[in-house]
Amino acid sequence: MLTMPPGFGSARRKQLLDLPPLGVKGRTERAREALAARGADALVVTDLTNIDWCTGFTGSAGALVITTDTSVLVTDSRYRDQAPAQLDAAGSEAQVRIDSATFDTVAECLGGATKVALEADRIVWADQRRLSEALDAALIATTGLIAELRSVKDEAELVRMETAADIVDAALRDCRHQFVPGVSERDLALMLEDQMRAAGAEGPAYDTIVASGPNAALPHARAGARRFVEGDLVVVDAGAVVDRYRSDMTRTFVVGKPDDQTAEIHDIVTRAQAQGVAAVRPGLEAQEIDRVCREVIAEAGYGDAFVHGTGHGVGLDIHELPALRRGSTAILSPGQVITVEPGIYLTGFGGVRVEDMVVVTPHGCRSLTKYPKEPVCQ
Amino acid sequence: MLTMPPGFGSARRKQLLDLPPLGVKGRTERAREALAARGADALVVTDLTNIDWCTGFTGSAGALVITTDTSVLVTDSRYRDQAPAQLDAAGSEAQVRIDSATFDTVAECLGGATKVALEADRIVWADQRRLSEALDAALIATTGLIAELRSVKDEAELVRMETAADIVDAALRDCRHQFVPGVSERDLALMLEDQMRAAGAEGPAYDTIVASGPNAALPHARAGARRFVEGDLVVVDAGAVVDRYRSDMTRTFVVGKPDDQTAEIHDIVTRAQAQGVAAVRPGLEAQEIDRVCREVIAEAGYGDAFVHGTGHGVGLDIHELPALRRGSTAILSPGQVITVEPGIYLTGFGGVRVEDMVVVTPHGCRSLTKYPKEPVCQ
Repeated sequence: MLTMPPGFGSARRKQLLDLPPLGVKGRTERAREALAARGADALVVTDLTNIDWCTGFTGSAGALVITTDTSVLVTDSRYRDQAPAQLDAAGSEAQVRIDSATFDTVAECLGGATKVALEADRIVWADQRRLSEALDAALIATTGLIAELRSVKDEAELVRMETAADIVDAALRDCRHQFVPGVSERDLALMLEDQMRAAGAEGPAYDTIVASGPNAALPHARAGARRFVEGDLVVVDAGAVVDRYRSDMTRTFVVGKPDDQTAEIHDIVTRAQAQGVAAVRPGLEAQEIDRVCREVIAEAGYGDAFVHGTGHGVGLDIHELPALRRGSTAILSPGQVITVEPGIYLTGFGGVRVEDMVVVTPHGCRSLTKYPKEPVCQ
Repeated sequence: MLTMPPGFGSARRKQLLDLPPLGVKGRTERAREALAARGADALVVTDLTNIDWCTGFTGSAGALVITTDTSVLVTDSRYRDQAPAQLDAAGSEAQVRIDSATFDTVAECLGGATKVALEADRIVWADQRRLSEALDAALIATTGLIAELRSVKDEAELVRMETAADIVDAALRDCRHQFVPGVSERDLALMLEDQMRAAGAEGPAYDTIVASGPNAALPHARAGARRFVEGDLVVVDAGAVVDRYRSDMTRTFVVGKPDDQTAEIHDIVTRAQAQGVAAVRPGLEAQEIDRVCREVIAEAGYGDAFVHGTGHGVGLDIHELPALRRGSTAILSPGQVITVEPGIYLTGFGGVRVEDMVVVTPHGCRSLTKYPKEPVCQ
C-alpha cells in the first residue's frame, strides 16, 4: 500500500529508467598497459571515482592496488558486504580486502613491486608521505593515467549521459515560459531541478546556475534571490545525474525583447559555439576547438570578454579530461564526451554562454544536448 | 508577474530564511597564531572550503596565501568580480589577485617567507611538487591547521546548522506515516529532500540514506528501489544544507511491529547513543565518547556488529574535526558540533543506527537534532 501526502508529485516520477548494465571488464587490463607505458610495475588508485570506474565500488573510502598480476580493493569494515557485491555485479577482477590499516595493507598488496605509480593529482601530500614510509619501492608521480582511460566512454556510459541530457532538455522545455519579469533565479533553478528528479534523474549534476542581468557577467554565479526584469540576459547552466553519469548544458535567454548589444553578443557566442562544434573530430588537438571559438569572438571585438576555457570532458565527474583550452595538446578520440562552451562576459551589463555536450564520433561529433539556442524562449 | 506551472509547490517554499550575516573577522589572525605555533611564517591554504571559511570566497579555484602581515587570495579571471565582492561582504582582510599562473603567483605573494606551511592533507602531491619547484623556501607539512579552527562554530554558524536540523526534523515529521509496506526507499528519500527544499534548505547535506530490511545492514547504503515490508528496520540518515552549513541525523524505524531481536538491538543502540551524548563535555578526549557507546553495545553482546566510529564534527563539510573514534585524542571544546551515532549491523538481517548532532556547551552539550527516537513512527 503506497500512501503519499498530496503535492509531492512522486506519481509523476518514472520508476527506474531502463538502462543497460554498466560493466568494468577489461578496464584493469587497460590500466596495466598504461602504467607499463610509464615505466611502473604497480599502481595505487586513491581517487574514489577512479576506483568506481575500475571496479564498480562506490564507497567513500578505499584504495585499489593494481600489480602486473593482481588487483585488490582495500576498504574498511563498513563495506564488508557492499564491496564484494558491487565488484561482482560489475564483473570486476579485483579481490576485496577489508582492513582499516590502509597504508600498511596497501604495502602488503603491492608484493614485490619496485616502481609504484601514484596518482599525483589525486593523492594528498600527507598520504604520499605515509605511503613513502610504508613502502620499500620507488614512487612514480603519474597524472591522468586513469582519467585518460575514463575519457573514452562505452555504450552503457553514453546511454546514461544522453538520458541525463534528454532530461535537462525536457526540464528546460517545461520551464520555457518562466523567462518573464518577477520569476527569481532560485525559483527557476528549483523548478528545473524538480523536473529533473521527476523525470528519473538522481538530481542535478552540479548546482544549477541561473544568472540574470548583471549576475550573468559572472561565469560561475549561482542561482540567487534576484528576480528577472525586462531585457535581462539569463544564463542557465544545468546538468542531471543518471546512475552516477552527468550531463552539462548552457543556454542563454532574454527576458522580453533584446536590445542591440544583447542581440549582438548572443549572436556572436552562438556562432562561435557552432563553429567550435563543427570543428570537433578525432585526431585534432583539444586546443584547436578553443582556438576556433576564441577567434570568432576576438574578430567580433570581444576577445577580452571570453574569460575561461572552451570546454572539458564530462562523465562520472562534471570536469574530466580532456581540457579544451590553450595549450591542451590532448588528441580527441572517438567516444570522448566534451563540452563546447564559449562565452562573453561584460561587467555590470550581463553575459552570454552557450554550451553543448558532444560525443566525438569516428568522423566528427554528435551533440547529446539538443535544446534550441534561440535567445527568446516562449 | 510570477507564472508557475501547477504542482511545483514553490508557493510552499519560504523565501530566504531569516539568518544573521556570516563574517570572517579575526579568523586570519587565528590562523597566523596556529601557523606560528607550528614553526611556520606563512601558510598556503589550498582547500576551497578552508578558503571560504577564512575569506567568504566560494569560487571553485584559488589559493589563499597568509604571511605574518599579508593575506592574498589568488584566483582566476572567472572570479574577477565575484571574489572582491564576497571578501568585502564577509569582512575579510585579504587582498584579491586575479592571475592564472597560480603557482608562480603564490610564490610571489609569499614574499620573504622561509618556512611555508602547506595543508598536507588537502594539497595533492602534484601541486606540492610544483610549489616546491616554484618556491625558495622550506615546506612544512601541516594537517588540520584550519580544520581545528573551523571545528569551533560561532553563533551565526550555529544558527544555520540548527535551522538545517530543524528542517530535517520537520521533514521527517511530515513523512512519518510513510513507514508502511509498499513505500520504496527512493520514494521516501525524495519526499524528505522535497520537504527540505520546500522549507528553505538549499538541498540535502549528502545523499539521503534510506536503508530497509537487509539493506539496513550496510552502514553506507543509499536509497534504492526496495519497497518496505512488514517487520523491516528502516535506517534514515538525513541532513540539510542552509546557507552552506550542514546538519546530520539518523533515526531507525520499524515497519509495523518489531520482532524480539529488532526491538532488542534498537533498544541497545538507543541506550548506547544516549549514554554517549550524556558523556559529552568540554575537556574530554573525543575517543572517550566512542568508548562509552562501544562499551554499552559490547556488554550487550554486539561489539563486533558496531563496525564504524561513533561520530565526527559537522559544519561547512559533513565530515569535519574532531573524529570520535578509538585513538582520537582531540579535546572537546565549547562550540564544536559533533555527531554521536553508534550502530549495530547484522548481515542479512538489518541494522540500527541512531544519531544526534550536538553542540558542545560550557558544561555538557545541547542537541541540535530533536526528532523522537521511538522505532515505531506513526
